[in-house]
Amino acid sequence: MPPTPYVVIDTDIVDDNIARMAEAARAHGQRLRPHYKTHKLHEIADRQRAAGATSASVATIGEAEVFDKVGDLFIAYPLNASPAAAARINALRSRVILGIDSVETAARWGSSGLSTSTSFAIEVDSGHHRSGVPPHEVRPVAEALDKAGFQLMGLFTFPGHSYAPDAPRKAADDEAIALQSARAELGRDDLVLSGGSTPSAVYADAEIIDEIRPGVYVFNDAQQLELGTCTEEQIALKIRTTVVSRREDLHQVIVDAGSKIVGSDRPGWTTGYARVAKHPEARVPALSEHHGTVTFPEKSALPAIGEELEIIPNHVCPVLNLVDTVRTTAGETWEVAARGKNG
Amino acid sequence: MPPTPYVVIDTDIVDDNIARMAEAARAHGQRLRPHYKTHKLHEIADRQRAAGATSASVATIGEAEVFDKVGDLFIAYPLNASPAAAARINALRSRVILGIDSVETAARWGSSGLSTSTSFAIEVDSGHHRSGVPPHEVRPVAEALDKAGFQLMGLFTFPGHSYAPDAPRKAADDEAIALQSARAELGRDDLVLSGGSTPSAVYADAEIIDEIRPGVYVFNDAQQLELGTCTEEQIALKIRTTVVSRREDLHQVIVDAGSKIVGSDRPGWTTGYARVAKHPEARVPALSEHHGTVTFPEKSALPAIGEELEIIPNHVCPVLNLVDTVRTTAGETWEVAARGKNG
Repeated sequence: MPPTPYVVIDTDIVDDNIARMAEAARAHGQRLRPHYKTHKLHEIADRQRAAGATSASVATIGEAEVFDKVGDLFIAYPLNASPAAAARINALRSRVILGIDSVETAARWGSSGLSTSTSFAIEVDSGHHRSGVPPHEVRPVAEALDKAGFQLMGLFTFPGHSYAPDAPRKAADDEAIALQSARAELGRDDLVLSGGSTPSAVYADAEIIDEIRPGVYVFNDAQQLELGTCTEEQIALKIRTTVVSRREDLHQVIVDAGSKIVGSDRPGWTTGYARVAKHPEARVPALSEHHGTVTFPEKSALPAIGEELEIIPNHVCPVLNLVDTVRTTAGETWEVAARGKNG
Repeated sequence: MPPTPYVVIDTDIVDDNIARMAEAARAHGQRLRPHYKTHKLHEIADRQRAAGATSASVATIGEAEVFDKVGDLFIAYPLNASPAAAARINALRSRVILGIDSVETAARWGSSGLSTSTSFAIEVDSGHHRSGVPPHEVRPVAEALDKAGFQLMGLFTFPGHSYAPDAPRKAADDEAIALQSARAELGRDDLVLSGGSTPSAVYADAEIIDEIRPGVYVFNDAQQLELGTCTEEQIALKIRTTVVSRREDLHQVIVDAGSKIVGSDRPGWTTGYARVAKHPEARVPALSEHHGTVTFPEKSALPAIGEELEIIPNHVCPVLNLVDTVRTTAGETWEVAARGKNG
């Protein structure tokens, strides 16, 4: 075993999570287009394809280059259009769909040298207020794409406001309404409507949404646990760590997993920076780069110095971006093929 | 230039920052033992040595292995004692000092095979309540080290509670009181007292503190800016990013630098997840993995799509752990030698 802290992936749980989401998508008649930014691993992508997901989402051109063998890649991001970006995209062998949300970018792709076999999906803001145009403003973007010689394939949204207690179902409703309104605005029934975050995916309206793009579901994490999207038994990735310091007076121990492996995502509605496997009573109120502070209720026994614990990160996607390799419960070591591919 | 987002280091500002802290330490008659966990770069370590810092702090054995040419390394962390760790430490060519804060760990190092030429510094909690023993509890740890055959070289603390508005001076006072009390408890005037975070370093009591261990000062960051520890002109590391989406109605743009390069450290007292260089009016209220949300006051003009901005991260240390290489204003590309060395 490597020295702690290190990432361990339970391949049985991964397989169950992949099968469950594949089945849910099939039951709803939806295409499952998993987001690879979560795992960045060929070994997981292969399992998703084996379970029927023959198309994928990625966030960057760098990730598309790593996963170019997939055959059907949607870069679900409003990329910066430039001749350099166009050249990299033209060099991909897969069928490529690009996200877009502005007239300016459509015009810039038009003069970038991007192959006109590249198709596009317009991003719609369904309430998360990040990128994307409001549903009633899709028309100018569609017209600019047409003028630049590109084909519009669909409309997509990321209902990221699903990440809050009791929010997933409402976010799924917002998603359906926003995408349907945007499609009506264009009067084009042929457009694919793509949505779905991990918390909202199971609520994605089967009558309206054609495709879902969840990512986190392959591993799950403390956010999903606290949202009620998964059980602890469905969490496939944990960070193995060792207790290095112990303070009875503070009811706390310090573990050697800090933000440099756990990440420091900490939405206000979470109980802390992470959870501890098999210790539902424990909380992680603080995280430095190499110190995780784990507190216990006043009367419970503290783990001993040298004892190993397993940390469940709040948000699993940044974790895979922090390590070069992961261990598996099957005894393998996997290289994180797309780590650091931000551009 | 690489595609955005990427890290740019201004080497002139780095040189100024290094010279200023070196001069402050000299003026106080203190040894400067910079913390390399901030930069993880040989090129910066070389500059710190050239400016007189012949000893260094690191956080992990992995970092010590990367910087083993330094000659005098303090692993300022209560490492997990094991035969495997001992073997790695014994293989280092540098003089090595290890942090420790428990009787258990002293006993475990005693039976680990660790060379008795390794010396130790006991960590004292000066108010940050992370690792470290309270000042009045140092004696059992010192006795356990002695029993295990190791030499005690000094006492150290990290006054991390300096990271809040108006807190640095008070934290420096706490540091001096805690270290002095702990030394008095042991009745040993020969022990080196080591303290100092970047915000508190300039306040470290010259009469009491022998050595300071700041790290962030080489680059500075938005936290230091908002604490008033540095000016914007003293910030040496920025993340070059491109505006990819723009919403007049929300007074916001989206840039392609998200938490996978900026990190997501966000203490409650900060104005957001980052700052934007040359745009003091801008705020970063949200950060996803590949999206930075930058808001502007209602009446100010928004940057155009395709425009490049420079993000000042809240906390610079995690940033160097997220990228394999950095660019410099001198046109060089540096490898981040100790990226990911968590164990």
